[in-house]
Amino acid sequence: MADEEKKAVAAKADKAPKLADPIKASIDPATQQMIARAQELGIDTVFDRAEAMKPCAIGATGICCKNCSMGPCRLPLPKGGIVGEDTRKGLCGATPNTIAARNFIRMIAGGASAHSDHGRSVAEVFMSAARKETDAYQIKDTQKLLAVAEALDVATTVEVDGETKARDMDEIALETAEKALNEWGKSEGELLYLKRAPKPRYELWKKMGVLPRNIDREIVEIMHRTHMGVDQDYRNLIKQGTRAALADGWGGSMLATDLQDIVFGTPSPIQSEANLGIMKEDHVNIIVHGHEPVLSEIVVAVAQSPEMLDYAKKKGAKGIQLGGICCTANEILQRHGIPTAATFLQQELAIITGACDAMVVDIQCIFQNLANVAKCFHTKLITTHPIAKMEQDNVIHIEFDEHHALDDAKKIVKMAIDNFENRKTEVMIPRHKAAQVAGFGVESIEYHLGGSFRGTFYTLNDNIINGRIRGVAGVVGCNNARTRHNEGHITVVKELIKNDVLVLTTGCNAIACAMEGLLTPEAAGVYCGPGLTEVCETVGIPPVLHLGSCVDNSRILLAATEVVKAGGLGNDLSDLPVAGSAPEWMSEKAISIGHYFVASGVYTVFGVGLPVEGAPVFQNYIFNEFEKLYGGMWDLEIDPIKHAHKMIAHIDKKRKALGIDKARERVLMDMADRQALEA
Amino acid sequence: MADEEKKAVAAKADKAPKLADPIKASIDPATQQMIARAQELGIDTVFDRAEAMKPCAIGATGICCKNCSMGPCRLPLPKGGIVGEDTRKGLCGATPNTIAARNFIRMIAGGASAHSDHGRSVAEVFMSAARKETDAYQIKDTQKLLAVAEALDVATTVEVDGETKARDMDEIALETAEKALNEWGKSEGELLYLKRAPKPRYELWKKMGVLPRNIDREIVEIMHRTHMGVDQDYRNLIKQGTRAALADGWGGSMLATDLQDIVFGTPSPIQSEANLGIMKEDHVNIIVHGHEPVLSEIVVAVAQSPEMLDYAKKKGAKGIQLGGICCTANEILQRHGIPTAATFLQQELAIITGACDAMVVDIQCIFQNLANVAKCFHTKLITTHPIAKMEQDNVIHIEFDEHHALDDAKKIVKMAIDNFENRKTEVMIPRHKAAQVAGFGVESIEYHLGGSFRGTFYTLNDNIINGRIRGVAGVVGCNNARTRHNEGHITVVKELIKNDVLVLTTGCNAIACAMEGLLTPEAAGVYCGPGLTEVCETVGIPPVLHLGSCVDNSRILLAATEVVKAGGLGNDLSDLPVAGSAPEWMSEKAISIGHYFVASGVYTVFGVGLPVEGAPVFQNYIFNEFEKLYGGMWDLEIDPIKHAHKMIAHIDKKRKALGIDKARERVLMDMADRQALEA
Repeated sequence: MADEEKKAVAAKADKAPKLADPIKASIDPATQQMIARAQELGIDTVFDRAEAMKPCAIGATGICCKNCSMGPCRLPLPKGGIVGEDTRKGLCGATPNTIAARNFIRMIAGGASAHSDHGRSVAEVFMSAARKETDAYQIKDTQKLLAVAEALDVATTVEVDGETKARDMDEIALETAEKALNEWGKSEGELLYLKRAPKPRYELWKKMGVLPRNIDREIVEIMHRTHMGVDQDYRNLIKQGTRAALADGWGGSMLATDLQDIVFGTPSPIQSEANLGIMKEDHVNIIVHGHEPVLSEIVVAVAQSPEMLDYAKKKGAKGIQLGGICCTANEILQRHGIPTAATFLQQELAIITGACDAMVVDIQCIFQNLANVAKCFHTKLITTHPIAKMEQDNVIHIEFDEHHALDDAKKIVKMAIDNFENRKTEVMIPRHKAAQVAGFGVESIEYHLGGSFRGTFYTLNDNIINGRIRGVAGVVGCNNARTRHNEGHITVVKELIKNDVLVLTTGCNAIACAMEGLLTPEAAGVYCGPGLTEVCETVGIPPVLHLGSCVDNSRILLAATEVVKAGGLGNDLSDLPVAGSAPEWMSEKAISIGHYFVASGVYTVFGVGLPVEGAPVFQNYIFNEFEKLYGGMWDLEIDPIKHAHKMIAHIDKKRKALGIDKARERVLMDMADRQALEA
Repeated sequence: MADEEKKAVAAKADKAPKLADPIKASIDPATQQMIARAQELGIDTVFDRAEAMKPCAIGATGICCKNCSMGPCRLPLPKGGIVGEDTRKGLCGATPNTIAARNFIRMIAGGASAHSDHGRSVAEVFMSAARKETDAYQIKDTQKLLAVAEALDVATTVEVDGETKARDMDEIALETAEKALNEWGKSEGELLYLKRAPKPRYELWKKMGVLPRNIDREIVEIMHRTHMGVDQDYRNLIKQGTRAALADGWGGSMLATDLQDIVFGTPSPIQSEANLGIMKEDHVNIIVHGHEPVLSEIVVAVAQSPEMLDYAKKKGAKGIQLGGICCTANEILQRHGIPTAATFLQQELAIITGACDAMVVDIQCIFQNLANVAKCFHTKLITTHPIAKMEQDNVIHIEFDEHHALDDAKKIVKMAIDNFENRKTEVMIPRHKAAQVAGFGVESIEYHLGGSFRGTFYTLNDNIINGRIRGVAGVVGCNNARTRHNEGHITVVKELIKNDVLVLTTGCNAIACAMEGLLTPEAAGVYCGPGLTEVCETVGIPPVLHLGSCVDNSRILLAATEVVKAGGLGNDLSDLPVAGSAPEWMSEKAISIGHYFVASGVYTVFGVGLPVEGAPVFQNYIFNEFEKLYGGMWDLEIDPIKHAHKMIAHIDKKRKALGIDKARERVLMDMADRQALEA
């Protein structure tokens, strides 16, 4: 090759976008294999794009304000930090604290809106079911209906001739649906669910002035207060953020979970599998992706119908393989055992297998680039929600409506089957998959860990008090292409269970744990410390309990409340030896979740980075001062081992405050003794 | 001076922040004088900060996405624009169209929240008044109450023994308050005010699927749809933006205006003055600044009370001079004739006079830097609203509550009077001020331009049809430190009235026009074309009519609706020879206002720049395609003369479509003939 040619080739290589190193991009072999496959096919994935484009460092640290058109104003933190007075200000005079607090609570507004709007959709479906306007949905769990009715002050009994009788279930359903929908916009009062929290917590919120009045109003007030020239005190701004986050955790999200349980059934432990290896070359593969189970529930029913199975076979397939991505996966996993195909970051890879006959998406966390990837294959990419369409013209929109849910689902499943014969490229499905047990919740923890003759959460509390379980951690959240896929999740969780901390998980953390085999009872013996192993093996549960989707973080709040009620571990959520974590968070929803955990009294650590680092005073306020106000506070730790140990240190601090630190020392000594004996 | 010294001085000068050139910063002599004064005192103002910090070019063109923590992703438009396919995308695959549309409708969410939350505060005060829980507020305008009651489907009559009688006014007030508050969060139905629009407009909104269901929900749905991975079709995104903007213009803003008129009185034309020169060295100067009249109404009453005047005199002052900034100014101007002290960009300058004894702020458009400026003087800076505090510790917070409104106002006024003797620096109040007539509205336009024996808006329509008035323009909006203060406002308005276009104004455009003397009947003879001069001189009105604050842009919608109803100018708002403009817009509220104008069928031009320029396809959609959908569309023109002529061209296009273009040609010919005869 002549020098000129060599130079031209080199120049071209320089211009070509940087590609990701599969090994550095993910710890998961299936993911590594498929990143390489995409690169071989010349298709860019999020992993490559993360190499090609760096994030804006000013924006990432929270100090870019674009809330008016005199900006965007950027207030970078000087290298080496602030010496003396911090004189940075935007054109209006907004300080870094004001800007970071504004941005932070607008993230809460985005996240709370996502969860709550999802909840509202479910409430509307529940209303349809209560009004008997739809054949596709009925009240599936009347026990849960009665529990929710009570929490919403709906009478479940009537007095007839001086006798107390059970009230008609249809009437209860209708009034419960009305009361539930009312929570989004009522013009007076406060959210009814707040009183489900331990009393001292409710009283604290009241004292702090953060009881949400309804769900929507608090989000709107965030948008107003963060408007140019309104609230310019970070303490007051985050106060409103707290109010809106509580309206999410103890409002929109909790209602979403409860009403889904009523209409689709309350989950109970169920076996399944996870990772791209669940897809089958000789089956029609339908992947559902997003967050709302309203459509996917019906897709599950239709895909399992003899009619569709026969049709698939007629078209040359051996059957229909359903798989889920993100929280739609978690929803149909916990209720039907449908296997999980992928985490958030793997969504493009499911199509790149060449075996995805249809990807059906609803809302949230869906890459717009799916449309570009689908173009390279035969995959039908189907959007289904009126509020979530795509710009690209190869995307098919089949608008789903609860009033003709079955017809919509049939159309979609049939479209996938018809598409089976159109596969173009060589199919490459990674073989990797792992077994998992999912479907835990307040009710099943009670069943598995509680004792029938004692208080509901007594056994759990007892094992925390005696030190076998050091504490409980909620580890949740997304993936983020800025960190190595699943590394944070898995390292944090393994370090926690190794140190006898029971982990409750949801969202993409749950999927990552499933892929790693941590959601099996057998994992206890392999990864856990002696105390936790003993408990898990005794009751036959995994050391990491999958509690569902991201709205199901509300299950963690209620489980913690049950722990308080069971006694012996203090009077408020902030007394418990618990901690929260989102090692690979990415979305605004994670910030809302993090903040309602903090405001509920939980120490919560995030990985990746937080957009507050450019505003040290505001950061200190929510990282440190907040503990004095709410008993819970934020923290940031990128190193996953340190991350886990910060959580453990907090758990130990709480154990000490409860006076149960000695118990644990005894347990450890016992174990050491036992091991010494065994050796 | 030695070379070393010279170098050191030069280096220091290099490091010192750039200062604004007062002449280049503003066209207003008072402003120029005070910028220089601030620089002399070593106090930075927004004008200097605009020199020292440039905006982020990527953010300013709408293509920075920080809606998830994999970003901020920046997609700069290549110099020379896009050649071939536009392959720019964020980590998730979001295109520039998705990103710009998301950012744009989040601005609508911010703006609509600001207006609507303001409206809700007023609705709550109205409810207090209806419930007779407060002495400070009563129903002042029962005529308006009856009109609003009807629009909200509240019965104003009762049947008694087969006879129709007027219903008890207290009952009407109470039910109207309930119905009004319900508009923010009702769980079924649609906004009741939408039917106040011309029928074809309402039907178009219905067909397009953009009838708002309630006010808050549409804002929350924007936040959800713009969350990572939800709506990724700019057409669908802006559709939700439209829905929320309509919930502002025909909902929150319109309710704010109506309920303020009921409780504080409907404005009618009133004389006053404008500019910093209204402040008086020998008086106690109290400046109220912000947007909500709830507190300032009471401050006006208290400041004019003999008790406080006596107290001021006892303290050595000749009296109390109240003055307003931003829309709080407009509110107390239009109802009480209180003079206007300053536009948005002059707010710091009011303190720099050294004569501002108290600045009382409520919500929106308040510089956080006021606190820093106030520190250099004796000025008491008082925040009053629970949702708008300031970080700095020299700011005094007196939380205002409608239940003890009078006490709060007295405390504030007394604090200002007590502070009179503490003035430190030499006082320098610019002498500049101008006379103005403000307080126009639907009712007064009807009165001044309508004829008692003919239809309400008949005379106005007649003069549009016969061509004396070429058309009507709504010129509104903020100031922006990125353009020369007031230059855009004044040049656009003067060019319009010179071309016989009647101007309706609100917000800081109204204040700018007042400072320039355009809000006087005498301005007609000086600045207007012959047709408009004739009309203004005949009925004795200014060629620029001040319709109030930024929520009062809803008055423009209703005035335009009256024009349609009066007949002869088409059947819908989009048929009218009208145009909208915001030459110096700055806030998210302006985007919401612009968009509800566009969605109401009005061609709307903005100055400064719009954060859509980096996404040419989305820009083309709202600039051009939108006309086919809604009859109204966006435009951007920075040059104020061209800006005005684009509006005039649109007005002429509409005249032609109505077949009244010839009429105007005849009028012009008549005038030319007459002038030729006179010469």
